[in-house]
Amino acid sequence: MKRAVVLLSGGLDSSTTLAICRADAFEAYALSFRYGQRHDHELVAARKIAHSLGAKEHRIARIDLRVFARSALTAGLEVPKMRSAAEMASGIPTTYVPARNTIFLSYALAWAEVLGATDIFIGANAIDYSGYPDCRPEFIRAFEQLANLATRVGVEGARFKIHAPLLALSKAAIIQRGLSLGVNYALTHSCYDPSPDGLACGACDACQIRLKGFREAGLIDPIPYAR
Amino acid sequence: MKRAVVLLSGGLDSSTTLAICRADAFEAYALSFRYGQRHDHELVAARKIAHSLGAKEHRIARIDLRVFARSALTAGLEVPKMRSAAEMASGIPTTYVPARNTIFLSYALAWAEVLGATDIFIGANAIDYSGYPDCRPEFIRAFEQLANLATRVGVEGARFKIHAPLLALSKAAIIQRGLSLGVNYALTHSCYDPSPDGLACGACDACQIRLKGFREAGLIDPIPYAR
Repeated sequence: MKRAVVLLSGGLDSSTTLAICRADAFEAYALSFRYGQRHDHELVAARKIAHSLGAKEHRIARIDLRVFARSALTAGLEVPKMRSAAEMASGIPTTYVPARNTIFLSYALAWAEVLGATDIFIGANAIDYSGYPDCRPEFIRAFEQLANLATRVGVEGARFKIHAPLLALSKAAIIQRGLSLGVNYALTHSCYDPSPDGLACGACDACQIRLKGFREAGLIDPIPYAR
Repeated sequence: MKRAVVLLSGGLDSSTTLAICRADAFEAYALSFRYGQRHDHELVAARKIAHSLGAKEHRIARIDLRVFARSALTAGLEVPKMRSAAEMASGIPTTYVPARNTIFLSYALAWAEVLGATDIFIGANAIDYSGYPDCRPEFIRAFEQLANLATRVGVEGARFKIHAPLLALSKAAIIQRGLSLGVNYALTHSCYDPSPDGLACGACDACQIRLKGFREAGLIDPIPYAR
């Protein structure tokens, strides 16, 4: 069975990506990060999802992005709430963490090389991507090029593939795909600013995009919301 | 004054690179990593060099590469000693840490973006590079491409430059360049396997390449050796 490293945040997109990786007959090595998030609910969700979707292994790497980042996700900035679709589409939000996907993919690359894997899965999405530059197709392709040049196996002729199977899917299509593959979305966590007991706020960009996705898919989001 | 992030290990190459960055009239932000090295002497050296060469700031980011890596530099493997030049030139050594420069440059990119800098300096060297794939010119250029696609300022039209001023220099030429810029090589540390009190072993690849460099430059290495 071919091995693959899967970046797994515990959110809707990365959980669906893990399910796709498994459906593509890979042995999945799930990788999450403790990077100074404001809360732990994401990592708890990642642990549950990795188990429920049969990941061979799940590792949580501790990295300190707070040293550099000024982001509403890691620093004291306020998470923006109830922004309109037009506001979300305009520019890069304060929840942007500099170079985050570059750092995450670099770690995935290191683990892949140790595992003898040349396949890496990431749940980047260019449709509902909230304006993050490192969720664009051209970024994914550039990292693939880099991986071939950066590694021992690349030098020896292997070719890395960065799988971003959600890149061109709407949130509704992602949810439908995930349900067809048995993803239990009740286990996932998307909210940027949950209540202390982990209830999603329903108002941040992540919640709004998620709720809209379920609505457009004609479905009810199975997680509870604080409001 | 333009800002630049400089990757600084505390060794000969990165110390020279910091001096070149300063000579190019950049305000230098030096970045080191605590990544599970076998010893702390490198980081102590980095601290001294950053101060002596007038870095504006020096940060040490803690990252855990031991989670993934099987390398003589971080795991329990034996550091190879007294290898011939031919042995060093053949293949990638056990001191190789998977994706290390990719991870280091990713962190530098994150800090650069926060600082509003688009210049990053790395002491990669393709001549005496001991067979590391991520010290080759094509790797550096690929990372530059990636940086432009990965970041907010890249999206807005800025262009990153990854400066690798040592890429085509011999170790002797690096030493001569550094001396002309006032680098105090007595403060630097290169050895992969020093004694508990920090004396260089004189036999690992790093020591051998360093000693050969000073010899070829017609100079005496100012640091003490255990043998």
